[in-house]
Amino acid sequence: MDISKIKNPSFLKGMSNSELEQLSADIRKFLIETCSITGGHIGANLGVVELTLSLHKHFNSPTDKIIWDVGHQAYIHKILTGRGHEFDSLRQYKGLCGFPKMNESIHDVWEAGHSSTSLSAAVGMAKARDILGETNHVVPVIGDGALTGGMALEALNHIGHDRTDLTIILNDNEMSIAPNVGAMHNMFGRIRTNQSYNRFKFDAESFFNRLPGGDKLRDSADKIKDSLKYLVVDGIFFEELGIKYIGPVDGHNFKELDEAIIASKKINKPVLIHVVTKKGKGYKPAEVDKIGTWHGLGPYKLETGEVIKGNTDGPAWSALMSDEVLSYAKKDKHIVAITPAMPVGSKLTKFQQELPEQFFDVGIAEQHAVTMAAGLATQGMKPYVAIYSTFMQRAYDQLLHDVDRQNLNVLFGIDRAGLVGADGETHQGVFDIGFLSQFPNFTVMMPKNGHEAKEMVKTAFENDHGPMAIRYPRGNAPKLQENAEINSLTIGTWTKERVGEDLTLISYGPTLELLTEVADDLLKEGININVINARFIKPMDFDMLHEICKTNKPVMTIEESMLTGGLGSQIATFMKDNDYHNILRRIGIDNEYIEHGDVNLLLEDIGISQSNIKSQIKILLNK
Amino acid sequence: MDISKIKNPSFLKGMSNSELEQLSADIRKFLIETCSITGGHIGANLGVVELTLSLHKHFNSPTDKIIWDVGHQAYIHKILTGRGHEFDSLRQYKGLCGFPKMNESIHDVWEAGHSSTSLSAAVGMAKARDILGETNHVVPVIGDGALTGGMALEALNHIGHDRTDLTIILNDNEMSIAPNVGAMHNMFGRIRTNQSYNRFKFDAESFFNRLPGGDKLRDSADKIKDSLKYLVVDGIFFEELGIKYIGPVDGHNFKELDEAIIASKKINKPVLIHVVTKKGKGYKPAEVDKIGTWHGLGPYKLETGEVIKGNTDGPAWSALMSDEVLSYAKKDKHIVAITPAMPVGSKLTKFQQELPEQFFDVGIAEQHAVTMAAGLATQGMKPYVAIYSTFMQRAYDQLLHDVDRQNLNVLFGIDRAGLVGADGETHQGVFDIGFLSQFPNFTVMMPKNGHEAKEMVKTAFENDHGPMAIRYPRGNAPKLQENAEINSLTIGTWTKERVGEDLTLISYGPTLELLTEVADDLLKEGININVINARFIKPMDFDMLHEICKTNKPVMTIEESMLTGGLGSQIATFMKDNDYHNILRRIGIDNEYIEHGDVNLLLEDIGISQSNIKSQIKILLNK
Repeated sequence: MDISKIKNPSFLKGMSNSELEQLSADIRKFLIETCSITGGHIGANLGVVELTLSLHKHFNSPTDKIIWDVGHQAYIHKILTGRGHEFDSLRQYKGLCGFPKMNESIHDVWEAGHSSTSLSAAVGMAKARDILGETNHVVPVIGDGALTGGMALEALNHIGHDRTDLTIILNDNEMSIAPNVGAMHNMFGRIRTNQSYNRFKFDAESFFNRLPGGDKLRDSADKIKDSLKYLVVDGIFFEELGIKYIGPVDGHNFKELDEAIIASKKINKPVLIHVVTKKGKGYKPAEVDKIGTWHGLGPYKLETGEVIKGNTDGPAWSALMSDEVLSYAKKDKHIVAITPAMPVGSKLTKFQQELPEQFFDVGIAEQHAVTMAAGLATQGMKPYVAIYSTFMQRAYDQLLHDVDRQNLNVLFGIDRAGLVGADGETHQGVFDIGFLSQFPNFTVMMPKNGHEAKEMVKTAFENDHGPMAIRYPRGNAPKLQENAEINSLTIGTWTKERVGEDLTLISYGPTLELLTEVADDLLKEGININVINARFIKPMDFDMLHEICKTNKPVMTIEESMLTGGLGSQIATFMKDNDYHNILRRIGIDNEYIEHGDVNLLLEDIGISQSNIKSQIKILLNK
Repeated sequence: MDISKIKNPSFLKGMSNSELEQLSADIRKFLIETCSITGGHIGANLGVVELTLSLHKHFNSPTDKIIWDVGHQAYIHKILTGRGHEFDSLRQYKGLCGFPKMNESIHDVWEAGHSSTSLSAAVGMAKARDILGETNHVVPVIGDGALTGGMALEALNHIGHDRTDLTIILNDNEMSIAPNVGAMHNMFGRIRTNQSYNRFKFDAESFFNRLPGGDKLRDSADKIKDSLKYLVVDGIFFEELGIKYIGPVDGHNFKELDEAIIASKKINKPVLIHVVTKKGKGYKPAEVDKIGTWHGLGPYKLETGEVIKGNTDGPAWSALMSDEVLSYAKKDKHIVAITPAMPVGSKLTKFQQELPEQFFDVGIAEQHAVTMAAGLATQGMKPYVAIYSTFMQRAYDQLLHDVDRQNLNVLFGIDRAGLVGADGETHQGVFDIGFLSQFPNFTVMMPKNGHEAKEMVKTAFENDHGPMAIRYPRGNAPKLQENAEINSLTIGTWTKERVGEDLTLISYGPTLELLTEVADDLLKEGININVINARFIKPMDFDMLHEICKTNKPVMTIEESMLTGGLGSQIATFMKDNDYHNILRRIGIDNEYIEHGDVNLLLEDIGISQSNIKSQIKILLNK
């Protein structure tokens, strides 16, 4: 079948299982080929081909609401709902989004990006249905990893109590992003592998059938038999919460999927179907991945699965930071590393291998990760939490109350700070500066290069600093200086990258490279630019700010972050508080969400480009 | 025993259970008397008298770490650790904090205020212990309500997987803040009340003892018996997660507590002791409370338990808002109300009674509450989420991603906005403006009085507004105008409370009353003050801002909120963006946490008082 010509999923209704199997093969081939060029979350999608077909066969989207948790596994859903022909633009600038998007299709009834929201959304949709007297099905599809996120468990607790009619699909692929951790994962593993559950069921029944009579005995036996329903049902965890459990079901077997879904439709209470799938199914390089490389990735060579690397001289920022922390942790057992399910993304696997006792992957559980770090710090430990900026949002209150308010020595490595590119809106790391700036005790830094990053790590571990954060972007750092001296930094100090008297540019992080280039270029035109490295975003360097403002020359801030709450806004209040009347211009993200696409194109859109900055400077200087 | 003379808990070691019972009675009497004057969380504390004594008898604080979840039930702990003599200052300005506080005692090893953090903190402390080679116990005490908070479940998932040695005390009082909801609560109820569990255990054992021989039968019987451990153990939910369950235990019976704690100490793996307590135990008015009035309250009459009310003309802000929403919901079934465990605090019990189908109390589950609201809104519903400002912090990412990014029509009633008084640091509602201001689509309002509040509710329900928030403080609103016309407001418009040309004061909410008094007073001295009601904190009234700034006269902002990220900071950036050089002074909370105490005293500390504002104005005007 020509995958790119599918308009909507209605054609599935009449298909036999063998036809569906052929379609599955076609879709897999299509996905593997297109993603080899665009990159994407190929592993997760290869795992849910049959499941997605089966859902769209048995349910009527969009009347029935299929809700994709996280959303990166919705490629087949996108194909079935008429977007196959756009897959060459997947995750590209102005192209097809890698996640469900309401403005792409009426079949995308919920947008995600972060995990564990589908059950709560489903409760809302089901309650709306009941209040408005509708009869549609609501079908959240959630992975085993996402199910351990706190809000999913909050929702389960509500669902089981409330008995709302929902069909929850638990997509258990044994591995969400990295190999899964957690007691629930262990429980699923027992269900999947421990055939004694089913054997026991058989034994118990034959045992009771053969029991000799006698009223007393029979009475007890009935009681036992009745209670055995708890024992022989695999999903007792869910049953205890009041949710009917069906499974485990082979997620690559249409017959098993048929039976389970049809059975679930007869029950007007919450049902969970436990579907066991294989991530990467049908593509060897993804199937054999045991650490999570194939969770989400860039283009790869179709034949071998070899990932095509860009031109990079320097180390990945994540690796640079994780390795630096590791070097301190080797010398000091008080230093431990914590990741919420991102050992691969945060490049902590080396740390994990070398210092397993000082390493904690807590699964998708950002709130727990942050407060656990606070608990460690109360005992004199020096925890390092590596966490993506966007995921750190999940732990706002824990950062504020448990870490900042108790003023504890926790160091955060804020990974993927700034624009992230292909993952788009839900993954941009552009809010953290705003909210951390409100927290009284936090120190927030961003290094311009690897050398400065190392100095920041040293600064954090060599002082009783209270909470500190080092932000670093996605991608690679500039090539490291060899044997450069690593010095501890004085908190709240900035440096001058270029000295000039016509105008001051203030920024932080790798953006400074662009600004020094601008300054060097403009110097040739006779314009002298002061370029400030605001390496401490909080606290600011007030001495230097006074010095800059006293010149009464214009100031321009440039940041890959929301303007509201950003460094530029803090400088604005500083100027107003101190009655400085310098002209101030702030370049950054102005009250909007930034979609997916090449980071350089996105930066150009928000005005962070050599040409725009130069022209803005010339306007300010009337040149 | 003279309760106020207790220095530390070591004297408990040698006490008999009958002596402990006498001490319990003495402590109850002390608590009931002192709290009748100071107010406080008396109900929760009366429930844990025996439990606290037993914990301090069997464990060695502070070597062993006793971690109080939420923390409002730590009064007995405070008494035992030498703070009884300070109880007359409980929750008062500069007095004893109503929650654990590290700077009060070395026995306070963890500070809380928000629920569900104790397990994560405990994991951190236990990991520190193991890495540093210590052998102390770590004992989190968590309520059944708090256990349903997402982060507690994240922690359980980690604990069960990791098998860290912890002694979790589940304090099950059937009621956390309001009558508890949720599937876990139902499960605990089954355990507590369904004596058939224990009867069954007996039956099964006698049944097997009386079984006739025969190898095959015996074999099956053994298998069943082995598996029965899952069945006869009440806490199979916890056992499934890998946590050893002990209980249920009568939390007012020292012998049962002794046995359970001693048993738990022999197990070097995670153990949960299920302790059943009665909130309000020993004080009739609190014992019979079925709705949560006695959760936390002000002074009361000792003999009757009658709450002593202050002088208030107007309605409680919470009641005013909830009743107004109810009046709309009666006419439109699309309007539903959601509360995370605060039906009493948010005065939603009337709504609950009158429109049960349109009302949802989801328990302590802020993340779920917010995303469920988003799910409802995707289906055309108009959900109203009543939530305390401080607890809304728990749902930061859900507010951002699920509500704001999808631009859904959810209305938030942000209760307890601003300073809250006696609950202190962890409960001040002073961060929401800062973080909501970063969210592109949110509209944030605060009414100066009940009439304006009603207009804001009308504005929200009569438009497709996208996300909106109406902030309102703790306490009572000014007396309502009778029969005043309720008009929908134009979004982003401010009004002038007083007109003057010397200087402009800008604020929002009930603070405006103070400012109009200041303006009226200063007018007598010949100073003409412009007073602006910035009822829309976001978006601001840009036309009026231009008008104000063009006068080139000084501007002063006054807000019961963090300065960083506050309205004043937004005005500062507006001025800088538009090259206005007006003098700007911002009064508010400057990068610090505000402790407990009378709100007026706290306001004076941060400069929000008639005298300070007047003197600041005179300084600015050189008068």
